[in-house]
Amino acid sequence: MSSLTEKMELFLRKTGEVVDLRRTLALLQWDEEVCMPPKGAEARGHQIATLAALEHRLFTSSEMRDLVAELAAEASELSLGENDFVRETAHDLERAVRLPESLVHRMAQAQSRAYHAWVRARSESAFGEFLPHLAGLVALAREKAECLGYAESPYDALLDEYERGMTASRLRPIFDTLAERQGALVARIVESPLQPDTAWMDRDWEEEAQLRLTEEVLRDMGFDFEAGRQDKSVHPFTTSFDTEDVRVTTRVNRRDFLSALSSSVHEGGHALYEQGFPLRYRRTLLADAPSLGMHESQSRLWENVIGRSLPFWRHYTPRVRSLFPCAPEDLSPEQVWRAANRVEPSLIRVEADECTYNLHIILRFEIETALIEGSIEAEHVPELWNERMRLYLGCEVPDDARGCLQDIHWSHGSFGYFPTYALGNLYAAQLLEKMEQDMPNLWDNVAQGKFWDILGWLRKHVHARGRAVTADRLLTEVTGKPPTPEPFLRYLEEKYAALYGLG
Amino acid sequence: MSSLTEKMELFLRKTGEVVDLRRTLALLQWDEEVCMPPKGAEARGHQIATLAALEHRLFTSSEMRDLVAELAAEASELSLGENDFVRETAHDLERAVRLPESLVHRMAQAQSRAYHAWVRARSESAFGEFLPHLAGLVALAREKAECLGYAESPYDALLDEYERGMTASRLRPIFDTLAERQGALVARIVESPLQPDTAWMDRDWEEEAQLRLTEEVLRDMGFDFEAGRQDKSVHPFTTSFDTEDVRVTTRVNRRDFLSALSSSVHEGGHALYEQGFPLRYRRTLLADAPSLGMHESQSRLWENVIGRSLPFWRHYTPRVRSLFPCAPEDLSPEQVWRAANRVEPSLIRVEADECTYNLHIILRFEIETALIEGSIEAEHVPELWNERMRLYLGCEVPDDARGCLQDIHWSHGSFGYFPTYALGNLYAAQLLEKMEQDMPNLWDNVAQGKFWDILGWLRKHVHARGRAVTADRLLTEVTGKPPTPEPFLRYLEEKYAALYGLG
Repeated sequence: MSSLTEKMELFLRKTGEVVDLRRTLALLQWDEEVCMPPKGAEARGHQIATLAALEHRLFTSSEMRDLVAELAAEASELSLGENDFVRETAHDLERAVRLPESLVHRMAQAQSRAYHAWVRARSESAFGEFLPHLAGLVALAREKAECLGYAESPYDALLDEYERGMTASRLRPIFDTLAERQGALVARIVESPLQPDTAWMDRDWEEEAQLRLTEEVLRDMGFDFEAGRQDKSVHPFTTSFDTEDVRVTTRVNRRDFLSALSSSVHEGGHALYEQGFPLRYRRTLLADAPSLGMHESQSRLWENVIGRSLPFWRHYTPRVRSLFPCAPEDLSPEQVWRAANRVEPSLIRVEADECTYNLHIILRFEIETALIEGSIEAEHVPELWNERMRLYLGCEVPDDARGCLQDIHWSHGSFGYFPTYALGNLYAAQLLEKMEQDMPNLWDNVAQGKFWDILGWLRKHVHARGRAVTADRLLTEVTGKPPTPEPFLRYLEEKYAALYGLG
Repeated sequence: MSSLTEKMELFLRKTGEVVDLRRTLALLQWDEEVCMPPKGAEARGHQIATLAALEHRLFTSSEMRDLVAELAAEASELSLGENDFVRETAHDLERAVRLPESLVHRMAQAQSRAYHAWVRARSESAFGEFLPHLAGLVALAREKAECLGYAESPYDALLDEYERGMTASRLRPIFDTLAERQGALVARIVESPLQPDTAWMDRDWEEEAQLRLTEEVLRDMGFDFEAGRQDKSVHPFTTSFDTEDVRVTTRVNRRDFLSALSSSVHEGGHALYEQGFPLRYRRTLLADAPSLGMHESQSRLWENVIGRSLPFWRHYTPRVRSLFPCAPEDLSPEQVWRAANRVEPSLIRVEADECTYNLHIILRFEIETALIEGSIEAEHVPELWNERMRLYLGCEVPDDARGCLQDIHWSHGSFGYFPTYALGNLYAAQLLEKMEQDMPNLWDNVAQGKFWDILGWLRKHVHARGRAVTADRLLTEVTGKPPTPEPFLRYLEEKYAALYGLG
């Protein structure tokens, strides 16, 4: 019988191998988006499938399960840190083991077919082509929820994968408050006579200068280019192969220099989180955020709260004037700030502004929960979608491509993912409120392009925890409260009152 | 009991997974050289070690061994193509199985330590620091040779890994002939009054134009950029993740535009081979060259025989004049051709010209065989090295950094690798002779920048075979002869007689 120390060492070695495989899978995917020549796709598909199967086999092996069970049984003999490792691994393992391999296999097959059908359906705006796949994926998701178990709603079992401990019944009152107050705010904004001038934006912004600006801002934020890099890709994303190898991507729109910048700052927020995990969590499952909502809080804090603030533009507007040959000579911080925060109810989530964004999420949450709880069928989705778009955003949906077919998530069978975007907004505002209390001259520093106090605060209170605590507990410990919509609504109402001259 | 067809399917699936792991390992390494930020090295080391261990476990699993044994026993029932798959897998498996895991482990540890000691020793030119590691690696290589088995010399067991079927006793007379005839040729060249003018080369050649030229030439050669890409790295190399995802790297020397070009054309030759394997060999062990020498024959054929020919420069010199703002206006094809083929006995193998290159190899071969056969000890290496440099190249070795410490190979425990470089030269010339017979207007096409007939010929006679035949058999079938030094010596003597006005 091996000693507890030996068991712990073996456990760390075995989970280290699982992490190696996951990081390698991430590299296969990063390369596919960033470097791979087009004809490489077929082989890459095989490589990813093989690695994923090996990862699953290794993680759920009987050796790993026995080891975790033995260590969990001796939890009282382990240090606090060791207990974190064991508890989190046991949690993931339990979820993985509850899903029968045949179900995992059927889901993978259905998702692959559904994804291709969705691509076709969206390009032709033909919901009917996607409908049978959506119905199948909903049935599989419900089967999955039954395997995983839940107390109130099968949706909770799915949501838990992305936002541990969160439930539909906790989300509903939060989302109701958001829908009411954000709806009212948007209505006032739309009617305001003070609308931003964005005509000056419409010019050909040089690509090289755009990339230079994104790199400067990333560096200023504290992104370590010795431990990461930025590339271009069709859809911006962040990935990590290690705490010291974190990669972001961005995309350039020559008609809008704010597009690449906000992508980079958003992904930079994710990346600072990944670069900020303690080195002792390296090659373990703890080098991760406790939830997608918490991860998203970091990207949205940097992108929206800081990157679209007036102090931020006080610092960077002169840089825009000097970097871009095409920039107006008299461009003012206020001009950029107003353009960067323009509110306009529209059809597409990924293009939505800060004021309307959550409304897009709430609409999806309502449809998702209804599907998973069985109160509507897949065929009713377009009708419900279009009705809610009218209700929440006052927009008429001209076709399903710009309606219920716009997002990739459902085609991947990801139900319960959307709410984490809205929670990211709430968490960010909750953290901001506490940061402003702790650091009275926070905005003065932003106005000088200095972000080290913000990053230091986030490192200490958020990044350093990894996933050793849940998002709920982290927020409660740091801000004194569990997730609540009030700080976000206060932030939003104050900011947009100033922008749109609301009384 | 499963049917033969089912067994064959399972075998292809299992070997496909092994190939996926090997290709993924290649991606981890490519990324490390081309993209990885510096701090990513530690995690990358773990990822590579984990993947390599998994690959070994998968490839040598009892399931794989049983499957191969069962299929081999029913060889007469298999098609010719199926037999190729089984035979080649059985060959690799037998080698892998003959090496005890403890020996593999000790070699990996010794190599890792030796590599770091070599880096230090080379930077300080202190052979003594590397000596104990070299002695240890030689002992391990001899142990390895005993496990693998051999008929005449333990060196043969090592050489066989890189050049199947080749032996020290077959190489010796070939190398003796080369040493004599190349030595005599170099002596005449050095004494020739007609030395090339290279003063015009000494200018600042624009990096962007250099890269543009390499891409144009690669495209002209037939490199498919939809199924591959070129990047920059410190040491140029080629790697392949699939027949349709083959990547080359190059490096730019702003004082010498021929440096990047010859790197790209060399790696392009390797890459055309990799892109030329039949698609039915995809995801199998047969999508490979039969030997390193055969692989090298492709890179050297393109780099030296074609890329340093006068017809080649008749086509590309005008491009050099138009691409480089700094190029002399009256630059002539003859000028570039002479500069590209300048002969100068020197200390460093990787900088050696076509006439002296094999002499560097022969020197290493003599030292390697003596070490492995036990006729000298590691401590005698510098003395023997310096003596042979004097004998073959007339060069005095000023320090071991520019002598026996210059190459990485021995620090990796790779004994038997060097001869494949020289064999590449021989194979290339042997193939050229046959190509010239088959295609009388070969050089007219080169002079017009048309390479499709050459590539087509290589595709048909070399690339299409993958590793289904040995290098020996391939050469014999295509050229009527096994490896022989005559065609190379004829090529060399004729070319350099013209260049240096030798009677």
